[in-house]
Amino acid sequence: MKIALAQQNYLIGDFEGNKKKIIAAIKQAKAKAADLILFSELSICGYPPRDFLEFKDFVQQCLDSVESIAKETIGIAALVGAPSINHKPEGKDLYNSAYFLYDGKVQEVINKSLLPNYDVFDEYRYFESNQEFGAIEFLGRRIAFTVCEDLWNTGINPLYITTPVEKIAAFKPDYMLNISASPFDYTHAIDRIDVLKETAKKYHLPIFYCNCVGAQTELIFDGGSLVITPMGEVFDEMSFFEEQISFYDLDEVIQSRNAGNREQPKGKIPLIYQALVVGVREYFNKLSFKKAILGLSGGIDSAVVACIAVEALGKENVKVLMMPSIFSSEKSVADALLLAEKLGIDHEVISLQNVYDATLNTLEPYFLGKDFDVTEENLQARIRAMFLMGFCNKHQYILLNTSNKSEMAVGYGTLYGDMCGGLAVLGDVYKTEVYELVKYINRNKIIIPENIINKPPSAELRPDQKDSDSLPEYDILDKILVQYIEQRQGPDQLVEKGFQKSLVDRVLKLVNSNEHKRYQSPPVLRVSQKAFGSGRRLPIVAKYLS
Amino acid sequence: MKIALAQQNYLIGDFEGNKKKIIAAIKQAKAKAADLILFSELSICGYPPRDFLEFKDFVQQCLDSVESIAKETIGIAALVGAPSINHKPEGKDLYNSAYFLYDGKVQEVINKSLLPNYDVFDEYRYFESNQEFGAIEFLGRRIAFTVCEDLWNTGINPLYITTPVEKIAAFKPDYMLNISASPFDYTHAIDRIDVLKETAKKYHLPIFYCNCVGAQTELIFDGGSLVITPMGEVFDEMSFFEEQISFYDLDEVIQSRNAGNREQPKGKIPLIYQALVVGVREYFNKLSFKKAILGLSGGIDSAVVACIAVEALGKENVKVLMMPSIFSSEKSVADALLLAEKLGIDHEVISLQNVYDATLNTLEPYFLGKDFDVTEENLQARIRAMFLMGFCNKHQYILLNTSNKSEMAVGYGTLYGDMCGGLAVLGDVYKTEVYELVKYINRNKIIIPENIINKPPSAELRPDQKDSDSLPEYDILDKILVQYIEQRQGPDQLVEKGFQKSLVDRVLKLVNSNEHKRYQSPPVLRVSQKAFGSGRRLPIVAKYLS
Repeated sequence: MKIALAQQNYLIGDFEGNKKKIIAAIKQAKAKAADLILFSELSICGYPPRDFLEFKDFVQQCLDSVESIAKETIGIAALVGAPSINHKPEGKDLYNSAYFLYDGKVQEVINKSLLPNYDVFDEYRYFESNQEFGAIEFLGRRIAFTVCEDLWNTGINPLYITTPVEKIAAFKPDYMLNISASPFDYTHAIDRIDVLKETAKKYHLPIFYCNCVGAQTELIFDGGSLVITPMGEVFDEMSFFEEQISFYDLDEVIQSRNAGNREQPKGKIPLIYQALVVGVREYFNKLSFKKAILGLSGGIDSAVVACIAVEALGKENVKVLMMPSIFSSEKSVADALLLAEKLGIDHEVISLQNVYDATLNTLEPYFLGKDFDVTEENLQARIRAMFLMGFCNKHQYILLNTSNKSEMAVGYGTLYGDMCGGLAVLGDVYKTEVYELVKYINRNKIIIPENIINKPPSAELRPDQKDSDSLPEYDILDKILVQYIEQRQGPDQLVEKGFQKSLVDRVLKLVNSNEHKRYQSPPVLRVSQKAFGSGRRLPIVAKYLS
Repeated sequence: MKIALAQQNYLIGDFEGNKKKIIAAIKQAKAKAADLILFSELSICGYPPRDFLEFKDFVQQCLDSVESIAKETIGIAALVGAPSINHKPEGKDLYNSAYFLYDGKVQEVINKSLLPNYDVFDEYRYFESNQEFGAIEFLGRRIAFTVCEDLWNTGINPLYITTPVEKIAAFKPDYMLNISASPFDYTHAIDRIDVLKETAKKYHLPIFYCNCVGAQTELIFDGGSLVITPMGEVFDEMSFFEEQISFYDLDEVIQSRNAGNREQPKGKIPLIYQALVVGVREYFNKLSFKKAILGLSGGIDSAVVACIAVEALGKENVKVLMMPSIFSSEKSVADALLLAEKLGIDHEVISLQNVYDATLNTLEPYFLGKDFDVTEENLQARIRAMFLMGFCNKHQYILLNTSNKSEMAVGYGTLYGDMCGGLAVLGDVYKTEVYELVKYINRNKIIIPENIINKPPSAELRPDQKDSDSLPEYDILDKILVQYIEQRQGPDQLVEKGFQKSLVDRVLKLVNSNEHKRYQSPPVLRVSQKAFGSGRRLPIVAKYLS
């Protein structure tokens, strides 16, 4: 029995494109004499389709697409993912399903039982949970089918009251197929392997796990599809972030005793870097845009975003503006210029001064008797955004946002100023991690100049300003933020961990009282277990630690 | 048996404030010799607490608050809403619960079974669903307890596979208590009554239904708490949008044969108007802000927002800026001035010209050989936003956004320009409905001048521009938008309903390809069944009808 895993990149709602890709893989698998080919969860429509699932027209196009793919399965079986209709009157109208296609027809529809509804997931919004279990005979072997989360009910405090694998194991399957759409975060590949190993071992079942690649707005899918032996060893881990079709002999997997060597490297910073490159590239490709623009300040955040953009889009497609104000140091512009030249990207130096002066002149009668304050700081940031957006409109660029996660967390940024952009590239990367990305980018040769790395972080919006005037040092700040945001530790727990109470209170208050800014920020490429955006939902109006 | 309903306004996470309010009502009910008092769903912490529920500290504060309220229930019972802990290892860690307090203690905890997870609701994100049912004896009568959605599983295609009321009815209760947090839309009060009447009649059960009031960011709660007789008649419907405590004699409700006269008026436009006033007032009050600012263009959208702001905050707390460009008609400024004077609000006329000229001069080298286009239109809108935000920063205003739902739907607005603001007041009100709001505002005397009403809608960002240059007439556009957005009708269904195919395709493409703009728009006060914001979740990157 030869099994193929097709790790592919789909575009949400692109039924024709997705279908073509799936059929091409089926043909390729047939040519290689595979008996069965797996695709990923909701491969037909792309994951996550979100509220498009509430449109009958969208669901019908999914069903039609499945039917026409089924016709291609003469002499080969295929497992594809698509919604299916719940024909019972009670419960939600759809299931999230795996369609087992063979002999030109849909042979079985297997519905997902465990519907993730935490973090970025909203599956219970659309789907009814399956309550019926079984195994299906194919070419003399029994297959256990599961969809993504169905495998994830382990540990001493499982999230769901039903454990599908346990129910299915009662039917004595010979191997398990799992179709997934499991978004990347830098810890996830390890967790995934642990869960699969545990399950394979517990039920002595080989598992073929097929994930997708590519990005869908803020969600990045890393692939890393897996074949696990019944002993709970990794037989193969497919590449990260790239399309690939691989072939496996079932008996070889079952009999393997010497696995574990075919795993992908999982360094945190290289993974984050690759994920961000994929996230940027995909956003542009899938929206049919080519060119990115950003403001290059001479600081490390915009330097890193420029490097990522160059890798994602090519240096000919990245333009940077340097927009010094009277508070910018000469050095900052020089550093930014040096980087732009090293990267070989188009750049302009544009002074804010005339527009800033005209703005202050116009508003002067209304600001009388008031000192220079955050108003004037924000004006500079907003003029920069206006210039950048002017270029976007006139020359069809997309503006890349360069805010990092530490800034976004504490609201250290100007709404409609440096918080603008089509995509927040570093919005899930803490400042201390941005420094690590710089090291990674410079690992073979210096691309980001030393000056940019060594200067103290500053917004340069008032004389001699430093981030540390208003914020704790980033190495402490980030530690508190990780505990609060990723680990959901409250103030008492943070103090127990040794952080100073007054500092904890101040940081948590900054985070909670800046929800209104994050609400209007661009989508953030997700690389951690808890990114700002659809996976973190908090009220703007509230009185809690604020 | 005397039963009190306390329809109150909570602030999310304000444990002290909410507790004080609840205890005051308990004392008042005791003074009036009530046996039992109801509060609304999650009254302890405010609804919806969203991801605050993921913090142990937050949940613990809920539990502590329940305990201290329990101490006040000597000689009276109280039913309050708060999360409770699921002590079983399987399933989510929390329930959404009703706490029955009596004799100074928590006597019973009743968990919610049906967890709404559609539109703006995310309850399955946090809560496990209850599977155990019963009725509780109190002062010789049996009570059926339900939490909000537990009543809502009716019709021939129910959303859930379990119908809690049916299960509870088997225990032969004498009356039902329901605690709810049911957000307003202009059709909801009618639906609510229908569902309650049907249930009361079917099981011959009197129902006491307690809802909250006030707004939580974009969600407005209208109250309208209900007492329904076992014959399925409305015994009383409490006031809309206002705090109120009412008292009922159980036997009188059971024996009543002549109800139905105590319903509130439910005209669509008056309800929307009141809801928007509450939404604005609450946003400011709960964030401890006093003063609003907005740009008054001479068009109807900003005119209506100004009137709503004056009613919500008082004329002394509303300021408007008129910011004509060379494309603004003299009339527009005059009309805006006339309105500002009629409303008696602070206003300034500020020319864009100098800043616009300085911007064009600065950007000229990069725009060479390119015609005037949307770039220059957007620049004007962005300069206006910069001025308004300058006032906000310098003088502590919140900017009110004046975009209507039709514009937001088709992307007819400038990101970081007229799409700025802390709160989108009309973001869920179609242009044709804005005209109806004008009529309502002018019902007793002309407040919004005729000129503003009668001029053709225009952004005035290029010479002689009219909305109808780029968009279909609003009366047709809005009909398509309602079908597509509220009713989730696809292109074929719209053509079947008689809309022109090319027009349908054009409008749907505009809606779908402008998701990126709405992603960054301010929170929208929700008044319809499907508002932009947390209740409508669509991918930015997709290829579907786009």
